Amino acid sequence: MYRDPVESLEPQSSHVAALAPRPLRVGMIGIGTVGSGTFRVLARNQAEIAGRAGRGIKLVMVCARSLARAMRVVGRDAALTNDPMLVATHPDVDVVVEVAGGTSPAREWVLAAIRAGKHVVTANKALLATHGNEIFAAARQHGVTVAYEGAVAVSIPIIKALREGLTANRIEWVAGIINGTTNFILSKMREEGLGFAEALAQAQALGYAEADPTFDIEGIDAAHKITLLAANAFGMPVRFADAQVEGITRLQGLDVACAEQLGFRIKLLGVARRRKEGDADGVELRVQPALVPATHLLAQVNGSMNAVMVKGDAAGVTMFYGAGAGSEQTASAVIADLVDVARLQGTTPAQRVPHQGFHAHAVNEQLAVLPRAAVHTRHYLRVPVHTAQQVDEVSTWLAAQQVPVQRVELARDQALPAGSGPEAQAQVLVLTDAVAQATVDRAVQALADHPAVAAPVVTLRVEWLEG
Amino acid sequence: MYRDPVESLEPQSSHVAALAPRPLRVGMIGIGTVGSGTFRVLARNQAEIAGRAGRGIKLVMVCARSLARAMRVVGRDAALTNDPMLVATHPDVDVVVEVAGGTSPAREWVLAAIRAGKHVVTANKALLATHGNEIFAAARQHGVTVAYEGAVAVSIPIIKALREGLTANRIEWVAGIINGTTNFILSKMREEGLGFAEALAQAQALGYAEADPTFDIEGIDAAHKITLLAANAFGMPVRFADAQVEGITRLQGLDVACAEQLGFRIKLLGVARRRKEGDADGVELRVQPALVPATHLLAQVNGSMNAVMVKGDAAGVTMFYGAGAGSEQTASAVIADLVDVARLQGTTPAQRVPHQGFHAHAVNEQLAVLPRAAVHTRHYLRVPVHTAQQVDEVSTWLAAQQVPVQRVELARDQALPAGSGPEAQAQVLVLTDAVAQATVDRAVQALADHPAVAAPVVTLRVEWLEG
Repeated sequence: MYRDPVESLEPQSSHVAALAPRPLRVGMIGIGTVGSGTFRVLARNQAEIAGRAGRGIKLVMVCARSLARAMRVVGRDAALTNDPMLVATHPDVDVVVEVAGGTSPAREWVLAAIRAGKHVVTANKALLATHGNEIFAAARQHGVTVAYEGAVAVSIPIIKALREGLTANRIEWVAGIINGTTNFILSKMREEGLGFAEALAQAQALGYAEADPTFDIEGIDAAHKITLLAANAFGMPVRFADAQVEGITRLQGLDVACAEQLGFRIKLLGVARRRKEGDADGVELRVQPALVPATHLLAQVNGSMNAVMVKGDAAGVTMFYGAGAGSEQTASAVIADLVDVARLQGTTPAQRVPHQGFHAHAVNEQLAVLPRAAVHTRHYLRVPVHTAQQVDEVSTWLAAQQVPVQRVELARDQALPAGSGPEAQAQVLVLTDAVAQATVDRAVQALADHPAVAAPVVTLRVEWLEG
Repeated sequence: MYRDPVESLEPQSSHVAALAPRPLRVGMIGIGTVGSGTFRVLARNQAEIAGRAGRGIKLVMVCARSLARAMRVVGRDAALTNDPMLVATHPDVDVVVEVAGGTSPAREWVLAAIRAGKHVVTANKALLATHGNEIFAAARQHGVTVAYEGAVAVSIPIIKALREGLTANRIEWVAGIINGTTNFILSKMREEGLGFAEALAQAQALGYAEADPTFDIEGIDAAHKITLLAANAFGMPVRFADAQVEGITRLQGLDVACAEQLGFRIKLLGVARRRKEGDADGVELRVQPALVPATHLLAQVNGSMNAVMVKGDAAGVTMFYGAGAGSEQTASAVIADLVDVARLQGTTPAQRVPHQGFHAHAVNEQLAVLPRAAVHTRHYLRVPVHTAQQVDEVSTWLAAQQVPVQRVELARDQALPAGSGPEAQAQVLVLTDAVAQATVDRAVQALADHPAVAAPVVTLRVEWLEG
């Protein structure tokens, strides 16, 4: 039998407990932006939260590097410590909230909390995307829950939507804008005609990008998130190591403008798509800058906002939109998880939502990530040529290489960088039908030697999503 | 103690039951569009659904008017009957799915099922919007759950989002396009310049509107849904009788065109907004055609699609988008509820999500719907005048009536109906700042006697939503 860690601390008379249930006692590791937001929202909305949860939710212990700073946030309401393991294992703590971030010590703290029989709430996508399989297995073994709504698109209850709201569906794909920093940069590039470096500098100045923005701009943060979404959508293990990850650092303003000319916008998309065609049985798991039709709802998601689209075989296409970061926005997710945990007291695992939406026996260990070469999408190619007359030459050559050319045109002057005279390169813009990445890669490599081609060819994926 | 109706039917050895849990046995009342979709999806995705629910979900009994038709849908997989009360009370049924619709006999069936100790899943918004308080009270009394994700915006798990995903938040407002028929008609009117009657006829021909479309086009269906959303957002009783309900039957194509000229689109919105200003403490609960800025995400929701926006004090603005009707789209919601119910076996009410998101003791019985006169929004006025020169006259007169005029212009020729010559009326278009409905109503009434005014004045609300 599973013994609930909270229940063991209850007064012995269950009748009294039922009338006035004891608050859920929270130990928190980390009291930075997310931790302090969580404290603030728990305090401000405590009556409504208790009315929903059926019991209070009380922060009883906080681990912080700076106790003085922690004291300024939580006052004397909670015990303070420098020792994360004390919070993870303390008998007065029912649930451990890990909002310190990082993977290496966080993994040990979370595993220690689980072994101590405590439920865990975390917003740490890096941790779960890399160590989720181990952590979920440990939680199953110890009969506790690890909740992580705050790990993906914080203000949007997308984990709950996937693993509870859409349980009837065979999920076909999940695709979304799940990194606010890069969406802010891409919006700036498009709206103000900026290059990547300028837009990044603006994002940093405005607090939308960190001093070291690598995780965001290289697509790693989005890849952590799409990995977790895929695990919940398809009932597959967490497979971050197999994801294809491409950021926006090499994206040129010229391609943003050329995409616009073709009726598209460029977004950094996380895509997880189930594929069952011939020998390619598996999952596309990838983060890439991609062209989305300008009229598509995802193209309307601007600034630092996030949106996740899900295609289910019964529900059809649904979309979930909201802020992807922020102190209280993340607190919203962390506290929703705490309210769920507040209801777990006395339940068995069969009465709970499993960590990845699927019970362990139903998780498909065989479901693998397809290699890059097997991914099929439409493509955008920009081929710099010496003269505009070479447009047909390029088009004919691509068709001969089995690239299914759908549309070809020259970049108009207004798409070209200011000051480009008639002597500048002409840019041949190509849209293809769906084609294997391998075919495109081969063609692009060969194009480098084509006499008409004046500079490196740029390719981007075109996501032709329903919805 | 609450005795779970399912548990009482379990094999006595709980060890054996834990290893191979018995399927959840579903009795269904009604096997029309939604019922047959539910049967189909349950059958098609049964392995994945069981993998998520931790046990199978099996349709064991169906009540239908035509047994022959029911037999064609479910074959010999389920017992068939004409008697809804048999399904509602049968000992072999764990959970009753009510998808027959209507309020009058449906209420009695649902109450009978509750009294027989069965959980209920229903997609019946009319039933819950009018009898929800009684039904939820009965369910609490008998220790069972009534789940109704399918009652609002079927493909979108919005009930779950409000009452579980956003539990940290004090909800400030909920606003949405929650009737697909009217959104289809409005999209047609705008895109093809049709009048209401023509657009309705097209919707009927294409199956987007019923032969008797009254519930949809008069806003009643949307009012049922916003009533349920408000109950979950604010923890208030179901107060459909107090909602202000205005449909789109009187909407003129001219106003769709004039709104477009001003940079807006007209949508039938359900709005529930908490207000705490001076003596107006309560909730706006209303369904009305309203102007939404054309660049706003809600304005991009076209055809028969639905979208619900929620503003929480912590999460900020979130939006949930998807199909609002359809056989398998509704099945998606019904089955999600069934999976939740499958996990309730052996739980107590304290371990469950309460019917309206708030536990009974926390439901605010005092929270009332504000009267129409007290509602504050921006407004659009279209004032037909004899000559274009009278535009200033109207504007000055409105300001004198305490209507805070923000912008005034004349309708351009292309907004006017084809064939309008220079001798036709001029249309003065006015946008106001936020103003009490009472002030606008008074001004519009008085305007009728103004010598410049050539025909009845049209007013519509302008919803200036964040997001």
